[in-house]
Amino acid sequence: MKTSLLALAALSLAIPTTAAAQRYDSRYGLEPGAHDEIAWDFLEGLTTEIGPRLAGTPDEARARAWAIEWLRAHNFQNIVEEPFPIDGWVRGEERARIVAPFPQDMVLTALGFSDATGAEGITGQIVHFASIADLRDAPESEVAGKIVYIGNAMRATQDGSHYGYFGSPRRQGPGIAAQKGAAAIVIRSIGTDNDRQPHTGATSWPDGVDPIPAAALSNPDADQLERMLRRSDEPIAMELVLTPRFLGEVMSANVTAEIVGRDPSLPPVLLACHLDSWDNSPGAVDDASGCAIAATAALRVAERGQPLRTIRVLFAGAEETGLWGSSAYSAAHTNEEMGVGLESDFGAGPIWRLETNFSQSNPALFERLTEATAPYGVVPAPNIVARGGADLNIMRDQGGPIIDLQQDGSRYFDLHHTENDTLDKVSPLDLAQNVAVWTAVTQVLANEAGSIAGGGIVAGE
Amino acid sequence: MKTSLLALAALSLAIPTTAAAQRYDSRYGLEPGAHDEIAWDFLEGLTTEIGPRLAGTPDEARARAWAIEWLRAHNFQNIVEEPFPIDGWVRGEERARIVAPFPQDMVLTALGFSDATGAEGITGQIVHFASIADLRDAPESEVAGKIVYIGNAMRATQDGSHYGYFGSPRRQGPGIAAQKGAAAIVIRSIGTDNDRQPHTGATSWPDGVDPIPAAALSNPDADQLERMLRRSDEPIAMELVLTPRFLGEVMSANVTAEIVGRDPSLPPVLLACHLDSWDNSPGAVDDASGCAIAATAALRVAERGQPLRTIRVLFAGAEETGLWGSSAYSAAHTNEEMGVGLESDFGAGPIWRLETNFSQSNPALFERLTEATAPYGVVPAPNIVARGGADLNIMRDQGGPIIDLQQDGSRYFDLHHTENDTLDKVSPLDLAQNVAVWTAVTQVLANEAGSIAGGGIVAGE
Repeated sequence: MKTSLLALAALSLAIPTTAAAQRYDSRYGLEPGAHDEIAWDFLEGLTTEIGPRLAGTPDEARARAWAIEWLRAHNFQNIVEEPFPIDGWVRGEERARIVAPFPQDMVLTALGFSDATGAEGITGQIVHFASIADLRDAPESEVAGKIVYIGNAMRATQDGSHYGYFGSPRRQGPGIAAQKGAAAIVIRSIGTDNDRQPHTGATSWPDGVDPIPAAALSNPDADQLERMLRRSDEPIAMELVLTPRFLGEVMSANVTAEIVGRDPSLPPVLLACHLDSWDNSPGAVDDASGCAIAATAALRVAERGQPLRTIRVLFAGAEETGLWGSSAYSAAHTNEEMGVGLESDFGAGPIWRLETNFSQSNPALFERLTEATAPYGVVPAPNIVARGGADLNIMRDQGGPIIDLQQDGSRYFDLHHTENDTLDKVSPLDLAQNVAVWTAVTQVLANEAGSIAGGGIVAGE
Repeated sequence: MKTSLLALAALSLAIPTTAAAQRYDSRYGLEPGAHDEIAWDFLEGLTTEIGPRLAGTPDEARARAWAIEWLRAHNFQNIVEEPFPIDGWVRGEERARIVAPFPQDMVLTALGFSDATGAEGITGQIVHFASIADLRDAPESEVAGKIVYIGNAMRATQDGSHYGYFGSPRRQGPGIAAQKGAAAIVIRSIGTDNDRQPHTGATSWPDGVDPIPAAALSNPDADQLERMLRRSDEPIAMELVLTPRFLGEVMSANVTAEIVGRDPSLPPVLLACHLDSWDNSPGAVDDASGCAIAATAALRVAERGQPLRTIRVLFAGAEETGLWGSSAYSAAHTNEEMGVGLESDFGAGPIWRLETNFSQSNPALFERLTEATAPYGVVPAPNIVARGGADLNIMRDQGGPIIDLQQDGSRYFDLHHTENDTLDKVSPLDLAQNVAVWTAVTQVLANEAGSIAGGGIVAGE
């Protein structure tokens, strides 16, 4: 103990009085007050002038037109819009009320592809399951005709990996409840905040299963419902009104644009994000930030001189409602080899880890990427295999090189798919760090003559 | 600089290695994990089993019935319900949309006593004022027929005193806009958060002025509107639908209950709070916490033996919509001298300062209160004159002794009058500190034989 206290005393002597301020201002190796004006202009413009842009709606079409104009104004080349059909769905009214034994309103939102209750609503008894496993195990007799509630409180993690585990009540819960004859399902929001802001998100229905009304309560409302269940001997009755509509086939589209390289015959560097958002927010972190980062990184590389390879930006459409744009892009471009793919779709938290799927096959390139990103506080993870995000289907389908620049997502799921996903939640400094890291990485990749997967000669040449 | 670093080094040597943990666990002089079960039971019970309880509604009546049952179960005596009439108002639908030039929905909520737009809504051009002073100065021609927007971003302060200054756009703004012929008014929420949670609250109309529709945008929506104003050369057009209703005269009531003292002829110690809440939340911090603190402090004193003076708890009705309960209580009890009044209506943040209006006239008692509260981290403020809160009209009307136990309200206006005012926002430890301080103060006051205002013999005896 004595030693550590003396060490602490010595440390105290070594810290200049402005240490705290200096540490803050110089974090990520950026200048004090760093602010990427191009990225911020994209982010502020899209979120302010377009706002919410749900897949397959006129809002999403306006967002594409806005993005194309922005790309043109910033001298991108080969700007292309590639339409594809999707299943359309739009939200309607949504409200809920506990009618007995503790009458009061609850805040919830319909899940994407929820069925409607009809304008008059339905009233049913709540049956509570702590997890989706408990719902799976329950006999139909316990569920039929009731409103299923699944608890399942998500925890925050830096890498967001819990979204897989905790997301299943939203993705599969409604289908299971429907198969057991439930009248409806309300889940605790898949989110880590305690705001009165429910988290929407798509659900899906197994083949042959008729959709039922499906919604998410905000976390404080879920807490409240659980307290009611604990405090009451009587059943809890909920009145639920949801009036969303299925639209049948509607159109979405991907937008791509390029910084053409000195050797356009080399497979391009693909920088991906998605342009659509949920309908309840301007989608500042999901995923206007991602498109701002990807597009700006391409421009920042171009500023340093024409790169060797072409850099292609992919603003995918209709990600939120089923990764439609990513699938369509892969199907359309399956025979066009991509050099490497990166995606930004996890907000604007600072990038903290570099992951690839070629660190073993091309250690020299991995080393150069490590050197390029270390100044910004990025940790190399040679033993983690990058898998890419939602908009990189083509890279997985081609078995091609992928890089994941992991962002700190500790608070991402506070905002994800809520009304609260607004511009004020993005830190300009964090956004600038993302652009700096993406620029450094893209600069290396777009000037790489050899194969990214394996070093040496580019495969196929 | 050298001196201060050496001092820091010396300090480091004096801190045991578990200092951080110890400091946290023992803060406020409470036991580690301190939790007042009685106060929490009141708070959880009222907010869960009743939820929102708007003045003059059946919900407020249910809250009174619940509170009376709780008081009875905890052996309070002389439980009395005193009805009084108020002007009733209830919320309806509320939604807004920017229709041009950047079409998108906005999140807002009607202010109390807002007029309705009619179900079909109104559409008008936004005219922007940075402050209420600018609106006051504006000619009618600039305002007439338009939808007034007032910016006025509130800042957080520890003592919440800014509510007076920043609250005026809500209190007086609608009246001024109406006088100048505005079609409607939307203000930036009087709140310090950046959640998509608009802050409601009562407005008032000058005599002879017809109400107009009046609402508050959430802070992120107000930011968004200001960005639109900055980015657009065209006017901003908003569609607004508000369908609240004026109910005319409805009934509310105060509830009082006592711990009867050994000498009931002595003026009682009055512990006040309000039982009603806004209609959009269970009102955990505003003001279920206050009633939990006041009622529990009375019980904790009684546990130590019957006090000399009677302790009377006042659960005021209809505070939120115009301090109706406080006025009615003062009118009904004007001839009954109160010994001293305290109120809790600023959430459950820890108490940090002791203020009275008798520190100069009764320094000996002030000293004893200082001693009683210092162990919990409370600072005496002999030079500040306590004025009491909304529910202490009777003390001001009588010119009687008042104590303000100032809570840390730094984050209070993040939640105030929003949907977000839910149980999860209250820290059990902070609530326990409040009860401990109130108990210590009430113990001194309720056993004070002399006049609280002046020492010596009680006035009137």
